[in-house]
Amino acid sequence: MDTLYYSPGAASMAVHLALLETGTSHALKRVDLGAGEQDTPAYRALNPNGVVPTMLIDGKPVYECAALLLLLAERHPDARLAPAPDAPARALYLQWMLHFANVVQPAFRIWFSPEKYAAEGAAHAKDLARRQIETAWQHFDAFVAMRGPYALGADFGVLDIYATLLMRWSRNMPRPATTWPALGALASRVKARPAWKKLYEIEGLTEWP
Amino acid sequence: MDTLYYSPGAASMAVHLALLETGTSHALKRVDLGAGEQDTPAYRALNPNGVVPTMLIDGKPVYECAALLLLLAERHPDARLAPAPDAPARALYLQWMLHFANVVQPAFRIWFSPEKYAAEGAAHAKDLARRQIETAWQHFDAFVAMRGPYALGADFGVLDIYATLLMRWSRNMPRPATTWPALGALASRVKARPAWKKLYEIEGLTEWP
Repeated sequence: MDTLYYSPGAASMAVHLALLETGTSHALKRVDLGAGEQDTPAYRALNPNGVVPTMLIDGKPVYECAALLLLLAERHPDARLAPAPDAPARALYLQWMLHFANVVQPAFRIWFSPEKYAAEGAAHAKDLARRQIETAWQHFDAFVAMRGPYALGADFGVLDIYATLLMRWSRNMPRPATTWPALGALASRVKARPAWKKLYEIEGLTEWP
Repeated sequence: MDTLYYSPGAASMAVHLALLETGTSHALKRVDLGAGEQDTPAYRALNPNGVVPTMLIDGKPVYECAALLLLLAERHPDARLAPAPDAPARALYLQWMLHFANVVQPAFRIWFSPEKYAAEGAAHAKDLARRQIETAWQHFDAFVAMRGPYALGADFGVLDIYATLLMRWSRNMPRPATTWPALGALASRVKARPAWKKLYEIEGLTEWP
């Protein structure tokens, strides 16, 4: 059985949600980030970057949130979590997954810890991160508005999961993602799914239910 | 015919190289970044982020370097540029593609333009980016050393292309990627391929041949 190393509300949450959506049985191991468990030799041996998620797949560790989402989608075709390789939406699916991985998630890292990036000018780094994130919401909102109700159209999938993780992270920002109309509707739709509610229960989350 | 919008030596270079490796015919359009062509309404209509690469696939614009690499690999199975979905190396292929997209390429953005991130403490931002990049080389070198001679073993693919693009960007850093032994060997091997030489000719590149 595959095992997910997670911390409540961290990027691992997206992988956890995808696992619940596939309906496959899996094991969970909580990594206590507050106690520094991510920096123990045992965890670093699984993930040298000391972050969650890590997943043991067939007994071997694999990391990177978006990689695990892509992988779960292709390993569980019956769950229909991604357009098939020959589907017309395939290119846009990959474009947005990678845009979130390459631009939006890294900008959140700066938003949450600007002092790491700019000892003396943290406000500047934070402001840049905010502009990068808001620009992405602007473009993604226009995209979802055209297709809807899910990001790629009628079918829910890992792109919706990844987007909702990142939208959740924006909940205390000056302009949360959900203030864009199509994104607010998308978030509501994902949050209404049974797997989302189950995830909140299991991870013990309360904010932005 | 698919069309690649590129600028010599930019991230588009990786997509260009993948196109050459597939051997499929394609059109090229150079985007003059120095003249600000990426900010014209015509280009922004294709890619609202104003960066290269963008590729017209079946007449429709798709962006994000790593997304295009994943897409080219899966659209050209005969070119064998990625492990098949059921291959044992598939999970690690996705892990490294996404690690480069999520951590290393964003760190290069900071390395090249630290003043964007930290008006007053650019050296600090640059130093953090350097540590992120060097840590990734350290881990990737250990990975390639175990498998070799290409990143995933015997077969060349888009992961080697993406890695080589990023290694090239490190050529003027205090510690270039190629000073790690397995990475130096990997870069030499990729640079010896006919497609690499052809790319240099077409894009008019001279550094780090």
